[in-house]
Amino acid sequence: MAIEKNIKLSVSYDGSQYHGWQRQDNGMTVQEMVEEKLRTMIGSEVRLIASGRTDAGVHALHQTCNFRTFTSIPPESLRKGLNALLPGDIFIKDAQYVPLDFHSRYHCKSKMYEYRILNREEPDIFLRGYVWQIRRPLNIGAILPCMDFLTGTRDFSSFRSTGSGNTNPVRTVLLAEIAVEKGDLLVFRIKANGFLRHMVRNIVGTLVDVGLEKTTPAQFKEILDSLNRQLAGIKAPPRGLFLVEVNY
Amino acid sequence: MAIEKNIKLSVSYDGSQYHGWQRQDNGMTVQEMVEEKLRTMIGSEVRLIASGRTDAGVHALHQTCNFRTFTSIPPESLRKGLNALLPGDIFIKDAQYVPLDFHSRYHCKSKMYEYRILNREEPDIFLRGYVWQIRRPLNIGAILPCMDFLTGTRDFSSFRSTGSGNTNPVRTVLLAEIAVEKGDLLVFRIKANGFLRHMVRNIVGTLVDVGLEKTTPAQFKEILDSLNRQLAGIKAPPRGLFLVEVNY
Repeated sequence: MAIEKNIKLSVSYDGSQYHGWQRQDNGMTVQEMVEEKLRTMIGSEVRLIASGRTDAGVHALHQTCNFRTFTSIPPESLRKGLNALLPGDIFIKDAQYVPLDFHSRYHCKSKMYEYRILNREEPDIFLRGYVWQIRRPLNIGAILPCMDFLTGTRDFSSFRSTGSGNTNPVRTVLLAEIAVEKGDLLVFRIKANGFLRHMVRNIVGTLVDVGLEKTTPAQFKEILDSLNRQLAGIKAPPRGLFLVEVNY
Repeated sequence: MAIEKNIKLSVSYDGSQYHGWQRQDNGMTVQEMVEEKLRTMIGSEVRLIASGRTDAGVHALHQTCNFRTFTSIPPESLRKGLNALLPGDIFIKDAQYVPLDFHSRYHCKSKMYEYRILNREEPDIFLRGYVWQIRRPLNIGAILPCMDFLTGTRDFSSFRSTGSGNTNPVRTVLLAEIAVEKGDLLVFRIKANGFLRHMVRNIVGTLVDVGLEKTTPAQFKEILDSLNRQLAGIKAPPRGLFLVEVNY
């Protein structure tokens, strides 16, 4: 008789053409696409549990998900078969057995997101789906102290989009840094034990106001302390956001 | 009374969604898209003359074209207006007046193409439209001497696709080099006074055979000297090819 297994997948995807990770009625999602190909391989319905959802248009270098199955196909064969069936914008980087009680969301210790801004006058047509272009020069020196304000355990209500229920708004940001690549590509990295709805995009939108000198670093700190979403800046567009790490 | 002008454009495009540069009946081309937006701005039909055509799926960092017009709109205003009207995969980098006798094709002295190969087992989903992935490791040391064989003035019939008429197959290759970026991205650069049909893609396909050690460097030289297209390797796919320079 077949034994039940639990298989963990590491998935990368270009989110441009998807309505986010999580299954929904409005359009194709990454979850639905992977589940559909898994069903083709395994011959029965599979339900993926991910570390969390990503929004429409958001990308992932590493999303983690798992599923329980009675299939006898080994993980590496599943991985190769899935990659042969999946479209070019989804790739399974790794597949392995995990204990039956492993749960991609409950057991996740931390995640890291990157947000990429192209800070120059001229667009880069080859990066257009993967950056937020800001034409006016950003003052990085003003943004830097704000990154320090973000680290630590605090209530991030100022950067939570509405419609996200009444869950606890306290999160621990383990790392908040900014790197400059190739002169005009700014990469924001935020690692936390969890994220509120649109938290990274709301933070980045507000940091851009600091970089444009519409908001001072001191005002950024006040916005953070106010716990009032109305005071924060706009939500950065999804195309610049990448889920890059999920840690257990 | 309006004076006739000649305006030169530098155009970059992501060729993924186009049937090449040159107007044709089968589908949308870059030329048709730019001409359409120019007509919207100028109010009359415009015919672009380019440095040469690029094939379906080939990209350009710098394509040069020109057109004659009686419009009084200055080049920089035309450039901004065009960029506002054009889709995100075409961008006009520069626009300026040139003498009435300037001709983008006849006056072109040289062009440079780059061909990008991702040489690794795992695909990069974010580069999938812009590289040719070769999974088996390529022997760069074997390819290097072949780059030297390519430079100089010679008959390149071995690397000319059929259906390209009876034009003179002699071209002067000014530069043929290979650079390794980020460890697994190979960039071939070929600069010449002109290119035969599919010349870069046919050369790269044959160089890959050398890198895979199916063909020796000496055999590559023999293929080049044979003037026989049948002996050369496959034609590399268009998605890895970029027109990067047009010189006058």
